[in-house]
Amino acid sequence: MSSSLGTLFRISTWGESHGPGVGVVVDGCPPRIPLSVEDIQRELDRRRPGQSKIVTPRKEDDAAEILSGVLEGQTLGTPIGIFVRNTDQRPSAYTEMQQAYRPSHADYTYDAKYGIRAVSGGGRSSARETIGRVAAGAIARQVLRHSLPRYECLAYVKTIHDIVAKVPDSLSAENIESNIVRTCDAAAAVRMIELIEKVRSEGNSVGGVVECVVRGVPAGLGEPVFDKLEADLAKAMLSLPATKGFEIGSGFAGTLMTGLEHNDEFYMEAGTVRTRTNRSGGIQGGISNGEDIVFRVAFKPTATVLREQKTVTNDGQETTLSARGRHDACVLPRAVPMVEAMVHLVIVDHLLRQRACSGS
Amino acid sequence: MSSSLGTLFRISTWGESHGPGVGVVVDGCPPRIPLSVEDIQRELDRRRPGQSKIVTPRKEDDAAEILSGVLEGQTLGTPIGIFVRNTDQRPSAYTEMQQAYRPSHADYTYDAKYGIRAVSGGGRSSARETIGRVAAGAIARQVLRHSLPRYECLAYVKTIHDIVAKVPDSLSAENIESNIVRTCDAAAAVRMIELIEKVRSEGNSVGGVVECVVRGVPAGLGEPVFDKLEADLAKAMLSLPATKGFEIGSGFAGTLMTGLEHNDEFYMEAGTVRTRTNRSGGIQGGISNGEDIVFRVAFKPTATVLREQKTVTNDGQETTLSARGRHDACVLPRAVPMVEAMVHLVIVDHLLRQRACSGS
Amino acid sequence: MSSSLGTLFRISTWGESHGPGVGVVVDGCPPRIPLSVEDIQRELDRRRPGQSKIVTPRKEDDAAEILSGVLEGQTLGTPIGIFVRNTDQRPSAYTEMQQAYRPSHADYTYDAKYGIRAVSGGGRSSARETIGRVAAGAIARQVLRHSLPRYECLAYVKTIHDIVAKVPDSLSAENIESNIVRTCDAAAAVRMIELIEKVRSEGNSVGGVVECVVRGVPAGLGEPVFDKLEADLAKAMLSLPATKGFEIGSGFAGTLMTGLEHNDEFYMEAGTVRTRTNRSGGIQGGISNGEDIVFRVAFKPTATVLREQKTVTNDGQETTLSARGRHDACVLPRAVPMVEAMVHLVIVDHLLRQRACSGS
Amino acid sequence: MSSSLGTLFRISTWGESHGPGVGVVVDGCPPRIPLSVEDIQRELDRRRPGQSKIVTPRKEDDAAEILSGVLEGQTLGTPIGIFVRNTDQRPSAYTEMQQAYRPSHADYTYDAKYGIRAVSGGGRSSARETIGRVAAGAIARQVLRHSLPRYECLAYVKTIHDIVAKVPDSLSAENIESNIVRTCDAAAAVRMIELIEKVRSEGNSVGGVVECVVRGVPAGLGEPVFDKLEADLAKAMLSLPATKGFEIGSGFAGTLMTGLEHNDEFYMEAGTVRTRTNRSGGIQGGISNGEDIVFRVAFKPTATVLREQKTVTNDGQETTLSARGRHDACVLPRAVPMVEAMVHLVIVDHLLRQRACSGS
Repeated sequence: MSSSLGTLFRISTWGESHGPGVGVVVDGCPPRIPLSVEDIQRELDRRRPGQSKIVTPRKEDDAAEILSGVLEGQTLGTPIGIFVRNTDQRPSAYTEMQQAYRPSHADYTYDAKYGIRAVSGGGRSSARETIGRVAAGAIARQVLRHSLPRYECLAYVKTIHDIVAKVPDSLSAENIESNIVRTCDAAAAVRMIELIEKVRSEGNSVGGVVECVVRGVPAGLGEPVFDKLEADLAKAMLSLPATKGFEIGSGFAGTLMTGLEHNDEFYMEAGTVRTRTNRSGGIQGGISNGEDIVFRVAFKPTATVLREQKTVTNDGQETTLSARGRHDACVLPRAVPMVEAMVHLVIVDHLLRQRACSGS
Repeated sequence: MSSSLGTLFRISTWGESHGPGVGVVVDGCPPRIPLSVEDIQRELDRRRPGQSKIVTPRKEDDAAEILSGVLEGQTLGTPIGIFVRNTDQRPSAYTEMQQAYRPSHADYTYDAKYGIRAVSGGGRSSARETIGRVAAGAIARQVLRHSLPRYECLAYVKTIHDIVAKVPDSLSAENIESNIVRTCDAAAAVRMIELIEKVRSEGNSVGGVVECVVRGVPAGLGEPVFDKLEADLAKAMLSLPATKGFEIGSGFAGTLMTGLEHNDEFYMEAGTVRTRTNRSGGIQGGISNGEDIVFRVAFKPTATVLREQKTVTNDGQETTLSARGRHDACVLPRAVPMVEAMVHLVIVDHLLRQRACSGS
Repeated sequence: MSSSLGTLFRISTWGESHGPGVGVVVDGCPPRIPLSVEDIQRELDRRRPGQSKIVTPRKEDDAAEILSGVLEGQTLGTPIGIFVRNTDQRPSAYTEMQQAYRPSHADYTYDAKYGIRAVSGGGRSSARETIGRVAAGAIARQVLRHSLPRYECLAYVKTIHDIVAKVPDSLSAENIESNIVRTCDAAAAVRMIELIEKVRSEGNSVGGVVECVVRGVPAGLGEPVFDKLEADLAKAMLSLPATKGFEIGSGFAGTLMTGLEHNDEFYMEAGTVRTRTNRSGGIQGGISNGEDIVFRVAFKPTATVLREQKTVTNDGQETTLSARGRHDACVLPRAVPMVEAMVHLVIVDHLLRQRACSGS
Repeated sequence: MSSSLGTLFRISTWGESHGPGVGVVVDGCPPRIPLSVEDIQRELDRRRPGQSKIVTPRKEDDAAEILSGVLEGQTLGTPIGIFVRNTDQRPSAYTEMQQAYRPSHADYTYDAKYGIRAVSGGGRSSARETIGRVAAGAIARQVLRHSLPRYECLAYVKTIHDIVAKVPDSLSAENIESNIVRTCDAAAAVRMIELIEKVRSEGNSVGGVVECVVRGVPAGLGEPVFDKLEADLAKAMLSLPATKGFEIGSGFAGTLMTGLEHNDEFYMEAGTVRTRTNRSGGIQGGISNGEDIVFRVAFKPTATVLREQKTVTNDGQETTLSARGRHDACVLPRAVPMVEAMVHLVIVDHLLRQRACSGS
């Protein structure tokens, strides 16, 4: 159950990092949506290890195969199976870790829960699991492209450690992809890259904040009470590896405003209800109001550091561990496409739900 | 669908603020759990309007009736229906709002979604909906009391606007309930009460942050991938009215640490795996590690302010609106039991899921 | 969980037979559907005890109250709560049964499952639970009336014991409701009534078969693989009390035909694809084909007989039991509206699912 | 959604008959269950084409690959992915069918629903979809072997057309597998084989009834109200291709008995509550009573017959169609492992649900 997400556009990811492969089944995709393997591969390439000098140098091409649900470039309405073979396993790098729990990793908790664990590569807790999400997100993106022509989702690195990017008025996919950090501020990008290279050279790591702006979502998506749009976004983001926080619109800073300062006044623009400000972050009462949806996600510094740390073994002995292997000193550049994929998945699910329950 | 939450311990709330009543059905509660109406009423009383001078003066006793699922003080394993009749409706207070959308409320988005709306009292988007949650949470609490004897959930007001409470080492339900703000710092409580009274006298409002510490959750609860324990907590919190953010453990501040600083080193204590620090907030890889679960939730300043604001009517005319009615100038004192209820619900659901899927 | 049904039009029933009341919450009903309490009461009256001389003489008016989700005769799109207070409990009639398990009832299995049981009136296993289903079915019927103007669902008693009704060409709700058995054959009705009165006078009981014809379901409803329309109908019917079998179209008798005899040839009629015969029962590959949906449900003879039977007590002693109380000697007349309600619920759920996933 | 089944032990099948392959993801399998690819392959071989002279001569080895969730012969508690590549597609055999709808197949209804269809091999409506079910069933079987040592599920052909098998007292897997029809009566098997060969030589087909006896299910499995054990079995069976009916215990024939004849009297045997007869089919009130679960499933004669039939094309022209290709003249021998797989899946899901909600 826990590897599935979505009510109507439902995805089920599977696969251990060092098993035969990873993948996803998407059940509930509408029929007759144009979809090619390139639509999926493009997003997987943004998530891929080895894509730049500031991410893990593991060499995996993460080539997707569409196993079902698509015929001659169109979805059939049946489950879409996506499969990516694992190719670059080096289980030997994990010998030591088999016994010693990596601090701030899921090693101990998996053992506590299951009494068994795929040690090599982190098994199911590996970030390789997100391949299935990104592939499914690319499919969701195609549905949205088809159904909401103005839809656009732009995630970008807002901060790395204490370096803050300036968000330009002319935010676009192009300026985000123009640098390997995936930030929207070219000057900050230079400093961020320097910082990431520095901490990596020290065997250390850093975290940061991804911000996301979602445009073109019409008013009326999202459900009252438990499946509020922001609640589903929060769950989607906190389900990504290494995330520690989520805030929408004014977020935590909004608690320092009074109600009069915080409220978004309505006005009319070309026959449409608009708000002057957007402290609400595009959602009111769990339902989109047609303004940009804006939220932020905190990613902790990568837990795997190449320095000696104190820990315990799976038989209860205190020990030390110096991780080896090839890891990201900062996950944020690769987290950007993950955040976008989760947004696509949440929005498309609510779009289908809204279609189902509209009154006529 | 969207008024239901939980996989195995599943709750469905229903009811509009000014309709006949509100309530909840809890399906999946284990049998033979001691439960009385007082267990439920006690929590409803903490959520109730009119409980102190700093909350809305509406007079509703919110008296719960158990309609099913309990016999002679014990749960039957069948659905538990809880019903609270509405008693203090004053629809006349809402005449003006019928046409003018209240800024930062759900009025406009409900109309956009449904094309119809229970205007009076906010209908389904009213905080009265949380009565069902709090009642269900009290039932969940009983299951946890029975199954996890060391379980304890302590939520408290951490900040109101810019006033920050100091968290004592000896945090307890008693010191939280000793003041009407439900903060854990008596000195801060005085200043918070003053501030709330001041903004209310001005027809304005304030927000703040609730922090929550959950003790006695054993290692192994939570599910990998999408139903991570922190993801379900984030969704539960962002589904509460007026919430804008969630962070667990180190949260957003953790992005300013390096991996070496941030990692929680393991050690052994009396045969148990422990961590020296708790940046993880008690959860690693989506699964509890036995440490305290610690998180924070941002609540925006109440949207209803008794001052004139610009807005539009439901037929697209620009206008101004001065809200009337009796409202909370600060929702946080009453939000504390809501946060606790949602925690109980998330934890009990994962406890049942863990029972189902343990290996033997 | 197990008291809920449906994916998008989701109902949750609650209530024990001799507790405060019974009811249902319907979550996912589209907004702006005309709905009055009379729409619901009309169907509850067809299900009600005491409606004729051949059903149980218990006197319960089963008066429905709408608690939420409806405003000024229209649905709001929010959960609809329906509540029926229990009024005619006579727990004393059940004293003996508290210890002795009634043969072919759920007494023993509830004890085996839960270790606790609402003995009086059968608790949750009582047919009173179906009040919630019939009320929810009436709501579903309103949605279908609004969305599928040609939709009509006609269930009727096909057999009582060995008496078989002849189905007229001009089957209509009127000829079914013209007799208290709810069969479609006036002559058979007379004999059926005689038989039911005879077995009741003997403290015995009889069963029979309900047949159901559903007209006006367009081609394309139902889902491949697990949620086939006939699979969901089968589940819905076997979830009704006292049912032992379900067959659709040619059913078990179809196994005596060859493929050439059994296949439904296609032809065109006024631009529509039609089949010459209807062995398929209106469904092919789990999806409606536009022909009438035709199925049958077997109901066993009522388990409660007023004659001495051998049984055991809840502490493992062999004993005998002569049931008392007021029971139906034949459940079929009251089962007819239950079957129809379940059909409405299955069809409306698939209608909403189809809306969600259609391609555009 | 519709390609998934189960609440806690949840399977999602995927794949078109003539696409790259078919498979299943099993989410919710408990950890540390012994599982090898041979456990799965053994059941797939019983379902496989070409296994005997009375089934379709298509040559597919249906070799399963375990893609995830298993390490060194043990389940990990994570999703188990199973993949079977398609090898023997002959799309040319389907050229004609692309236009003409095959009578009593899903061709027309898929077009009506989706507006697109994988014509070749029947796409998703092909019986190849059941490969995923049988593989998942084999995994469920391993969990049950581990958790319920006395569990045994024996399905067998009860009738083919008008030939009825005699069920011996000493029913066993061995006597069922001793003949290629998978019936429990060696003499009937000879006549059944003759009949199947005869109708096949005529380009015709036959159907029949599979009966299933499930032993070793303890009292207490199954849920009240909607997820009754028999309701879930009925849904599971009616979701199999070519099924038209389901009955449990006394079934339709039970409607010819009176209550006194039909009731199963209780008695004690070695401290256990037993019933003298088993008209209930092992389930009372939706919950198992510890007796054998006994049910029957009707399978219609195969729709694909190699004789000319009248039909229409997808552009509304009347035409005739003579199917070609290699098909089963009788699906029942291959349906036996499918029925068993569905039973395993239903029982294991209810076993996990019972674990979750037991009182302690």
